[in-house]
Amino acid sequence: MNKLYLEDFRVGQIFGSGRLRIDVDEIKAFAAAYDPQPFHLDEEAAKGSFFGGLAASGWHTAALTMRLLVTGDFKPAGGVIGASNQISWTRPVRPGDELRLEGEVLEVRPSKSRPEQGLIKMRTTTLNQNDEPVQILVANLVVPRRPAGP
Amino acid sequence: MNKLYLEDFRVGQIFGSGRLRIDVDEIKAFAAAYDPQPFHLDEEAAKGSFFGGLAASGWHTAALTMRLLVTGDFKPAGGVIGASNQISWTRPVRPGDELRLEGEVLEVRPSKSRPEQGLIKMRTTTLNQNDEPVQILVANLVVPRRPAGP
Repeated sequence: MNKLYLEDFRVGQIFGSGRLRIDVDEIKAFAAAYDPQPFHLDEEAAKGSFFGGLAASGWHTAALTMRLLVTGDFKPAGGVIGASNQISWTRPVRPGDELRLEGEVLEVRPSKSRPEQGLIKMRTTTLNQNDEPVQILVANLVVPRRPAGP
Repeated sequence: MNKLYLEDFRVGQIFGSGRLRIDVDEIKAFAAAYDPQPFHLDEEAAKGSFFGGLAASGWHTAALTMRLLVTGDFKPAGGVIGASNQISWTRPVRPGDELRLEGEVLEVRPSKSRPEQGLIKMRTTTLNQNDEPVQILVANLVVPRRPAGP
């Protein structure tokens, strides 16, 4: 698929991704590095926690979602560059879950201050193997405008 | 410091953190795993990009901010559990940057549906060694209410 410029995007466009399975070792390794809390590190400690069992850090889900986005169908020229985001975690991600994402373009607009670029608002929903949403991210992405032809 | 319940938080409370230095190998390793784009992976390729040089993935900054938060002064009972967040990246994080955070409680409110818990809205500003903000995160965190005494 070719790289896409601002002019190539339309409200309502849908983008998909591959799938990524998250295993228990990866959950614990990410948590040890970035979110060292008992419910992300230890099955026994997690049982009595808010999550009722071992769960991935939300930031781990966010990072995996970025991987799904960057390696998926959505290919803006200049790369996937987020400016600001709203992110919510709607249910725990568990060891063995298999994640994918569905992206939908919500808004496309040229920048007022920078004529060479624009912003796309996109909602990405990260789903588990049961098609249950685990994360909803509404991202404002910087996308270049198509350069004038020769 | 003791673990804090909803009743212990007040609007305007400030929380700090230690510092974390981010090096070039860590930037590239995180990017290879979660955000494999040229401007996070390769100095030469990054020069011609939006970032004008190698920069950490925003999700890497978010993950390091979580580490700073979890290992810092802010110690809610039950752990640091985010429900929804607004996150913006205000300038690139470069190899060698040293990050810290400043957190401020913006709102404290009991849950309407779950009497045993409440929500805190907190703004965390992640700053580099020049005290320049690199990320602003406004997080809604789930915090337990203090159990009734005997």
